[in-house]
Amino acid sequence: MNIALDMMGGDYAPLEAVKGISLFLAEGGSNISLTLIGDEAKVNELLLANAIPLENIVVLHAAQFIDMHEHPTKALREKQQSSIAIGFSLLAAGKTDAFISAGNTGAMMVGALFSIKAIEGVTRPTIGAYIPRENGTLGLLVDAGINADCKPENLTQFAILGSLYAEHILGYKTPKVGLINLGEEEGKGNLLAQAAYPLLKENKHLNFIGNIEGRDILLDKADVMVCDGFTGNVVLKMAESIYDLVQRRGIQDEHFDRFNFEVYGGVPVLGVAKPVIIGHGISKGIAFKNMISIARQMLEKNLLQKMKDVFEQKK
Amino acid sequence: MNIALDMMGGDYAPLEAVKGISLFLAEGGSNISLTLIGDEAKVNELLLANAIPLENIVVLHAAQFIDMHEHPTKALREKQQSSIAIGFSLLAAGKTDAFISAGNTGAMMVGALFSIKAIEGVTRPTIGAYIPRENGTLGLLVDAGINADCKPENLTQFAILGSLYAEHILGYKTPKVGLINLGEEEGKGNLLAQAAYPLLKENKHLNFIGNIEGRDILLDKADVMVCDGFTGNVVLKMAESIYDLVQRRGIQDEHFDRFNFEVYGGVPVLGVAKPVIIGHGISKGIAFKNMISIARQMLEKNLLQKMKDVFEQKK
Repeated sequence: MNIALDMMGGDYAPLEAVKGISLFLAEGGSNISLTLIGDEAKVNELLLANAIPLENIVVLHAAQFIDMHEHPTKALREKQQSSIAIGFSLLAAGKTDAFISAGNTGAMMVGALFSIKAIEGVTRPTIGAYIPRENGTLGLLVDAGINADCKPENLTQFAILGSLYAEHILGYKTPKVGLINLGEEEGKGNLLAQAAYPLLKENKHLNFIGNIEGRDILLDKADVMVCDGFTGNVVLKMAESIYDLVQRRGIQDEHFDRFNFEVYGGVPVLGVAKPVIIGHGISKGIAFKNMISIARQMLEKNLLQKMKDVFEQKK
Repeated sequence: MNIALDMMGGDYAPLEAVKGISLFLAEGGSNISLTLIGDEAKVNELLLANAIPLENIVVLHAAQFIDMHEHPTKALREKQQSSIAIGFSLLAAGKTDAFISAGNTGAMMVGALFSIKAIEGVTRPTIGAYIPRENGTLGLLVDAGINADCKPENLTQFAILGSLYAEHILGYKTPKVGLINLGEEEGKGNLLAQAAYPLLKENKHLNFIGNIEGRDILLDKADVMVCDGFTGNVVLKMAESIYDLVQRRGIQDEHFDRFNFEVYGGVPVLGVAKPVIIGHGISKGIAFKNMISIARQMLEKNLLQKMKDVFEQKK
């Protein structure tokens, strides 16, 4: 199995990406080969400086780089030699099995959707985000901001994809799926939530527990929390800001420390045909290590095939 | 000026309502007369027990009571002798100038919309909520959950109403209005936010500062934060839950203590023709006192006339 990593993406690249590789290898990543895409000279120098064993590593030179602020579609079209464009062309050609970047999120989404395509039957791929919970586990929020306007059937698909991810990667046996809503009772909500509720309830692939409210998001009421990407993005960024607030107040607390979203590394694009992981721009070594581990788990557990099977059945 | 108070609404009524009156009078509420609606015997007994001076107080008996879980429209129609129904009939008849209840929120909204009616030109009245900020001030979130599905022009009206409230009651000179969105740049967002942005930008009654993100909600970036009631309700309840979490973690912090939404008492219904204030079910004495003070300020500052003037101009 091969995982490709964009060495140029993120505020602290390529150094922190190299540190991440070092941490990953230290945990015993020997059945995985890595393709590192970026400035060849710089990357080689850092690999050497960090004493990284090179037997399972190939460095591929990228002559270009997509900046965080570039227009995604335009940048991908015009910079064919960028690390992100090269990563997706390797993935599309089957020369790698997964692709990871902490670079331009928009370009990563465009690449995932247009180079790799959606799993057959998935109308709108989605992106998840972790929500730390007091018992030490993680909840999964889908959609975290890609699909601002949704149809009810999109929410059902997010729930199925999120549920499979929560089961096979986060380790929940039959993940509890909750619909984020403004009230608990069936029938509450905006038009979208009202229409999504019966679809979620009837779907045989889901352990749907009903509506959850804003007050339940930081608790462990549901393992997978489903909403449109507008709501999800507001919720996620508000959750992230709690960490800053707690830090500014000088509060030391184990649980609130887990609101430091930097450590989670990336979130997977769910619903595209191959594993694609998008990291936070501020990713440090541990985040890169976590992203490589997630990609490896997705491959080892054959998660993409499991997703394809469900959408195949539904036809 | 007369303010009517539902003595039977809320989990701790009528005792905490009486305590609130006591606190209010202690602050010097002498230019205000109060009409207290509820179980006459019980209320009189509590007024006596709490040594409340009776010169500016009238107790009106209500033979019925609307429970927290009753269906709002049905309960209001069938229980004409309930404290909420009596309060609205006094307000509609001009026998009181403002009405406050911590009872059934739905019944309060239905009463406000159908007994009192909207200010001419206001398509959808809204409900605001306070968001505590680190500098000790309060931000205002509109809509906090009444209008789950909105049109762009509803958001502009929420912004105008919220802005007038923030100026005259919260004391901001030219309140900064932000649109809650998933990105900062103009053009970002779901269809609603995209369409609302130019309307907010062009409106001469607003000091519109642009989009704000989830991470900005707990900061002081905007004084008035505008969104649809679905998003607003999720945001508000998530903010409320931070207090519970902080308490459970055993954290003592002055700022996080202000996330105890019980103390704010009620939030005003904005856009109806007379002051109506809806309290939290868990309101205690201080919350009741704060609600009476807000109603008094709304009357003293003639806020309703100021709102009417703006919507009159816009015709």
